[in-house]
Amino acid sequence: MKTLQTYIDKLNKLNFKEMYNNDFFLTWEKTNDELEAVWTIADALRYMRENNISTKVFESGLGISLFRDNSTRTRFSFASACNLLGLEVQDLDEGKSQVAHGETVRETANMISFMADIIGIRDDMYIGKGNAYMHEVSEAVKQGNEDGILEQRPTIVNLQCDIDHPTQSMSDMLHIIHEFGGIENLKGKKLAMTWAYSPSYGKPLSVPQGVIGLMTRMGMDVVLAHPEGYEVMPEVEEVAKKNAAASGGSFTKTNSMAEAFKDADIVYPKSWAPFAAMEKRTNLYGEGDTEGIKTLEKELLAQNAQHKDWACTEELMATTKDGKALYLHCLPADITGVSCKEGEVDASVFDRYRTPLYKEASYKPYVIAAMMLLSKFEDPAALLKKLEEKGTPRKMD
Amino acid sequence: MKTLQTYIDKLNKLNFKEMYNNDFFLTWEKTNDELEAVWTIADALRYMRENNISTKVFESGLGISLFRDNSTRTRFSFASACNLLGLEVQDLDEGKSQVAHGETVRETANMISFMADIIGIRDDMYIGKGNAYMHEVSEAVKQGNEDGILEQRPTIVNLQCDIDHPTQSMSDMLHIIHEFGGIENLKGKKLAMTWAYSPSYGKPLSVPQGVIGLMTRMGMDVVLAHPEGYEVMPEVEEVAKKNAAASGGSFTKTNSMAEAFKDADIVYPKSWAPFAAMEKRTNLYGEGDTEGIKTLEKELLAQNAQHKDWACTEELMATTKDGKALYLHCLPADITGVSCKEGEVDASVFDRYRTPLYKEASYKPYVIAAMMLLSKFEDPAALLKKLEEKGTPRKMD
Amino acid sequence: MKTLQTYIDKLNKLNFKEMYNNDFFLTWEKTNDELEAVWTIADALRYMRENNISTKVFESGLGISLFRDNSTRTRFSFASACNLLGLEVQDLDEGKSQVAHGETVRETANMISFMADIIGIRDDMYIGKGNAYMHEVSEAVKQGNEDGILEQRPTIVNLQCDIDHPTQSMSDMLHIIHEFGGIENLKGKKLAMTWAYSPSYGKPLSVPQGVIGLMTRMGMDVVLAHPEGYEVMPEVEEVAKKNAAASGGSFTKTNSMAEAFKDADIVYPKSWAPFAAMEKRTNLYGEGDTEGIKTLEKELLAQNAQHKDWACTEELMATTKDGKALYLHCLPADITGVSCKEGEVDASVFDRYRTPLYKEASYKPYVIAAMMLLSKFEDPAALLKKLEEKGTPRKMD
Repeated sequence: MKTLQTYIDKLNKLNFKEMYNNDFFLTWEKTNDELEAVWTIADALRYMRENNISTKVFESGLGISLFRDNSTRTRFSFASACNLLGLEVQDLDEGKSQVAHGETVRETANMISFMADIIGIRDDMYIGKGNAYMHEVSEAVKQGNEDGILEQRPTIVNLQCDIDHPTQSMSDMLHIIHEFGGIENLKGKKLAMTWAYSPSYGKPLSVPQGVIGLMTRMGMDVVLAHPEGYEVMPEVEEVAKKNAAASGGSFTKTNSMAEAFKDADIVYPKSWAPFAAMEKRTNLYGEGDTEGIKTLEKELLAQNAQHKDWACTEELMATTKDGKALYLHCLPADITGVSCKEGEVDASVFDRYRTPLYKEASYKPYVIAAMMLLSKFEDPAALLKKLEEKGTPRKMD
Repeated sequence: MKTLQTYIDKLNKLNFKEMYNNDFFLTWEKTNDELEAVWTIADALRYMRENNISTKVFESGLGISLFRDNSTRTRFSFASACNLLGLEVQDLDEGKSQVAHGETVRETANMISFMADIIGIRDDMYIGKGNAYMHEVSEAVKQGNEDGILEQRPTIVNLQCDIDHPTQSMSDMLHIIHEFGGIENLKGKKLAMTWAYSPSYGKPLSVPQGVIGLMTRMGMDVVLAHPEGYEVMPEVEEVAKKNAAASGGSFTKTNSMAEAFKDADIVYPKSWAPFAAMEKRTNLYGEGDTEGIKTLEKELLAQNAQHKDWACTEELMATTKDGKALYLHCLPADITGVSCKEGEVDASVFDRYRTPLYKEASYKPYVIAAMMLLSKFEDPAALLKKLEEKGTPRKMD
Repeated sequence: MKTLQTYIDKLNKLNFKEMYNNDFFLTWEKTNDELEAVWTIADALRYMRENNISTKVFESGLGISLFRDNSTRTRFSFASACNLLGLEVQDLDEGKSQVAHGETVRETANMISFMADIIGIRDDMYIGKGNAYMHEVSEAVKQGNEDGILEQRPTIVNLQCDIDHPTQSMSDMLHIIHEFGGIENLKGKKLAMTWAYSPSYGKPLSVPQGVIGLMTRMGMDVVLAHPEGYEVMPEVEEVAKKNAAASGGSFTKTNSMAEAFKDADIVYPKSWAPFAAMEKRTNLYGEGDTEGIKTLEKELLAQNAQHKDWACTEELMATTKDGKALYLHCLPADITGVSCKEGEVDASVFDRYRTPLYKEASYKPYVIAAMMLLSKFEDPAALLKKLEEKGTPRKMD
């Protein structure tokens, strides 16, 4: 039987010093030890909540959610993580259209951060902007702290940018780890990250990019499949290649969904927009070219419609390893005959995997909280021990 | 002088086991003991707050408010109740038009509930939908908890549905109990739940329905009065009849406001929309028939205008028991000459009852908190005792 | 080295009894001792936060923000202050257009205040309305508390009204006090509160009014400078004159920015709208005269444009005391060549003062928290001592 000590012992074997007082932008900027520390603490926090041990480590303090885009689910995950640690959420909704720069970012970042320990940012709309914006905010508040404006340095958690979606991919991976019984069992497993048809367009690239950027690190054989024209960012493909080489796995590409699914242990079929089209859209927005945006939208929908055969059907699932590959999705999925006429996945497939899919999603608040804890506390292992000894019940008993 | 022990002793005589880990949908689904438990705990919580004893029973956890309709007052009541117990509120505003079903409800309910202990739902707009929706959410999160997705089962508090408005009627009743010096004094008292004219239309039926469904349980003589055509849901009238028979009171109907007011101990004059019209409107919304909705609106306003004589005037008030019936309203009221030209009540009547009306409303946060406590804790009597012994001041002294 | 005891000792020498259970509307309604108490407690709270001592004095309770106007910065300052003391923020956004009166204000104020300890109000849009509205809310909840509706009396913090902006001017002053090494060093210092050109119009008068109403109390030579036609409220000028007379300083007016800047120790160049124009606009809004408002807007922008030479340039800054006057602004500033083509201040001036400007702003959450503490606790000195002895870390260590 697992005890909290199991997690603490594991933490004590890992080196994650650099995470203290630092941001979390991209998984490939972190070492394997650092990623393992996130999963270990996420599991530990979940264990403590299940056992009614309070993990409130802040008596006061704010967690600021800075969203370019409305998102119920991400907002609730972030709010849950903050609440778990004792931070109060304050939302700053910047709106979709306005991309602030320079002086405004620097000033606003400081003005909202006087009591902020964490800033969670979601900015995935515009290629080349989201991640850059997060760095701008980070620099501003770091400086603010050095200048004595802010009593603390608020650290950034990337809740989805144009490049990576680390809280998603880290939750996906924690789910995989649990399903396969440990990281050590992932070597040689085949994971298919494939495009799938959706009647909507412009779905972010950060999910497939996040997946190939992370899953290639565990010695798995990662296949990226999509129709021609749905390429992801070349830089991230480079990351995936290097990861695979270093981990003893592989990273391959194909334009055949069937090939990707064949004997796969894990499948992640999901729609996304072509990288080049998103880049074009970003420029059109920059130029305020509304007509151009509308035209592009039509083109993209028409392009999507040529690939309706890219769906996670029962037939395809039957070709996976023992016909039982683990089906993943970041949710919500476009379910054929349920949420749309034709979509990413057959209703019967989705139904069969509903419970594991919800479980996959349920790791996210814990993953976010773990990232927070690692950035705010120098010795989280000692902290967890202290919380256990204190033994304040989360819910009075 | 009352002490906390008085409330604890009372609780220990009541059977409310079934409330633990359960939802609160309709008052008539609860036993008399269960309702008394709500009032007793509401009073105990108020006593503790007045005496600066903290009732914070959660170190962390979310209370989710899921509103179909914006409502400042209900939102603040729910937020107050959550805050009193230590839960942080997160709002999910679903918008008016969209009525989600099936997969979407199931998924969203789980995705927002990872750290949720309570979900407060207000969905009173569409006949046949609100209560059903609450049950759908409840089933989804119950299943989510059984499947290991959610560490806890979030329980539902009905903050107003198409059938009942239990937090309102329970607050109204707690007010009555205090005004009359105890439940035992209510036997034989006459309560008039009457329609009243308002220049707006489409006011929810859940208030009169909630009142006749609850007030008939205490041996009172409950009269429901309204102009012809303003019938409430027949099922709820059946409930009222059965309640009256069981409690030794009576439930009668009349189309005369004067008859209802005559010798009444308590009057509750309030506008509502005809049940049949609301059913029609629900269908029109379902069909997206905007023209039909506009036409219906005009018809309903015209219909209302035929009954401007249905007002709580000084003359009518003079006909009540000793001219001093307790005047109730869920607020805000349409006050003649104040908030509208002609409305539900004379300004002088409203003025005279302002303080008791505000008092009536002030029970709601405590009633909601009591419902929460009863659903989340198996032995609330022991919990209250523990809180008193702990004696943490709410506000440091 | 300062210790908390330094602040406690200072507090014990001041008389601020009247602040307990009272509102904070205008600085000139408070005695010098009372203002010093605010600054002392603000400094003490900051000291405690820097030293990781929790200042959570409420286990539960709400801080309500009631804003007529959206404001990210003020909202975050208020939220930060509430969070620092343990209150949870609930926002009531009343919208810009609707100015509620009488019954509605009284009722709403009570309905949202059942668990409210503090109500922060920002209502600066309409001349003659904002401050009056705050008093209306205050009266309503005071009565509600006396009538037994509310268990506590929620006190009001003026977060900006049509007359004063006390949380701003008090933060500005705390910044000055720290920069000049103490209140005792301010005697004879010259402060220039001057108008400056901005390409937008209708900026609130409450900032310059707040500044001349407060800064004249410390024996400083306060100069108010603006082009003809940009007069502030005459009543506030009277206040400034009386203050100056009483404090041994001076209050003078000029239509020359150069004259104001000459040898100034402190400069506060900032755009505002003419008082008379704002009064006119208020009436136009009252009459719903949209055309009139548009015409007025054009006139005001044209009027502004005649005074583009009113800018805080390097040349002007060079004329101040040793060329090094302390430059103040409530932020955000209109920076020439950065946030607009021509604005209030040269980019190089702003750049040089960025850190002190941010520091100036950083006092606001502490000033607000201090106002709250003084209104809710009879003996804040003892409270601070108790918090230090308790020594709960804000962030677990």
